[in-house]
Amino acid sequence: MRPIGVFDSGVGGLTVVRALRRRLPAEAVLYLGDTARLPYGTKSPETVARYTQRNVDLLLERGVKGVVVACNTASAVALPRLASPVPVWGVIEPGARRAAAASAGRVGVVGTESTIRSDAYGEALRRLRPGLEVASEACPLFVPLVEEGWLDDPVTERVAERYLAPLVARGIDTLVLGCTHYPLLAPLLTRLLGPGVGLVDSGEAVAEQLAGDLARAGLLASGRRGEDHFLVTDAAERFGQLAGRILGGAVSLELVEVI
Amino acid sequence: MRPIGVFDSGVGGLTVVRALRRRLPAEAVLYLGDTARLPYGTKSPETVARYTQRNVDLLLERGVKGVVVACNTASAVALPRLASPVPVWGVIEPGARRAAAASAGRVGVVGTESTIRSDAYGEALRRLRPGLEVASEACPLFVPLVEEGWLDDPVTERVAERYLAPLVARGIDTLVLGCTHYPLLAPLLTRLLGPGVGLVDSGEAVAEQLAGDLARAGLLASGRRGEDHFLVTDAAERFGQLAGRILGGAVSLELVEVI
Repeated sequence: MRPIGVFDSGVGGLTVVRALRRRLPAEAVLYLGDTARLPYGTKSPETVARYTQRNVDLLLERGVKGVVVACNTASAVALPRLASPVPVWGVIEPGARRAAAASAGRVGVVGTESTIRSDAYGEALRRLRPGLEVASEACPLFVPLVEEGWLDDPVTERVAERYLAPLVARGIDTLVLGCTHYPLLAPLLTRLLGPGVGLVDSGEAVAEQLAGDLARAGLLASGRRGEDHFLVTDAAERFGQLAGRILGGAVSLELVEVI
Repeated sequence: MRPIGVFDSGVGGLTVVRALRRRLPAEAVLYLGDTARLPYGTKSPETVARYTQRNVDLLLERGVKGVVVACNTASAVALPRLASPVPVWGVIEPGARRAAAASAGRVGVVGTESTIRSDAYGEALRRLRPGLEVASEACPLFVPLVEEGWLDDPVTERVAERYLAPLVARGIDTLVLGCTHYPLLAPLLTRLLGPGVGLVDSGEAVAEQLAGDLARAGLLASGRRGEDHFLVTDAAERFGQLAGRILGGAVSLELVEVI
């Protein structure tokens, strides 16, 4: 009955928790939001890798049965070097697999500067389906716009139009939401892109992957659902407000200090 | 001939360096941008105070003759608890003094969430000039918009219109730019507010204060100007690009590790 650890740089990973709750309602989640050191998306790979290892260690100390690295940036740059005695899932591979399966041939990827610069989605997509056309765009203002709560807003729409224009020009049929904040912009992005472009939420994809992997390993929870618990490294109040909006209800928060 | 230490959470403090270069051209600056841990504006006072003390210690180890805390958030929440054997200047007090002297009676203050929540400008302004009307607005998207380089842009204009609307409604005659990034938006803000509203750049105000204080203490540099030097805690490349734009020329960068 150990919880699944979920780690993100901040509040965005709660969209992954939302996906896990839907797909695996019997599982309990221990969440860690490294709010003291966010954002990860503009930091160097070395720094992101160092922070990620410390965060995973903290979740391991609390007895999780596996860890989801919900942060796309951390998944992109830190996953290969991560040390852990329990299974670790990133969001890139499941998201790329879903996009490669769904696309008619042209995939767009949006994410933070670091995620896009790493080309982790591009590499995974081309490996999974050689010949796939991939176009990527960094969207640095999406996270602050979501944090500001301007989810369906004319300003956000104009920013999105500008970021998406090169992808639209390339004729993409599928868009990978390569940052955990972006599913909160899905209604706006769908309206802008039209019904011909499918959105891939890497959080939903990793929840699907976990369902299979945990079942195969005999690690699925059963019976009554445990309580989710949320750790943050700073500013719990702000996190709590956004968490309530994403998960639809109050969450139990604990402030932990990281070095 | 020791340098003046200038510390900011990131690249924004370079507007203070620009002001120091103009006002005190003989002085050398040792700059520290804590880019690994930015932004400070959304973090708790305790965390900001801890980071600020470490950053000041690092500058002291390098032999500075005084430290300018260019970051408004750090000035607002960390300055009173700071330990230092050399003089330390924050930007709030000089900025507030200049605004109190210039205003016809109604001052607006814009800044990060933490700076505005601290009400440090409001307290200083009312202490310096009782009866002054002060209205404040947090502008969380200004920093990411500046970092994106959208300085004079229709999107930034719409965001600014929305943030400034309550201040315009209050009839402010003076606006304090309570964040080191904001002087880069000065042309756009001036256009929006019209010639009847004066802008106060706290960086220019602190440079003026230093000129007086250093002269009185016999600490002014003389002779040929020393080289400025810039320390960053992460992602030097990104910092270098923005620094070049703000200071108008390449800067010598050194990456330092902070715990």
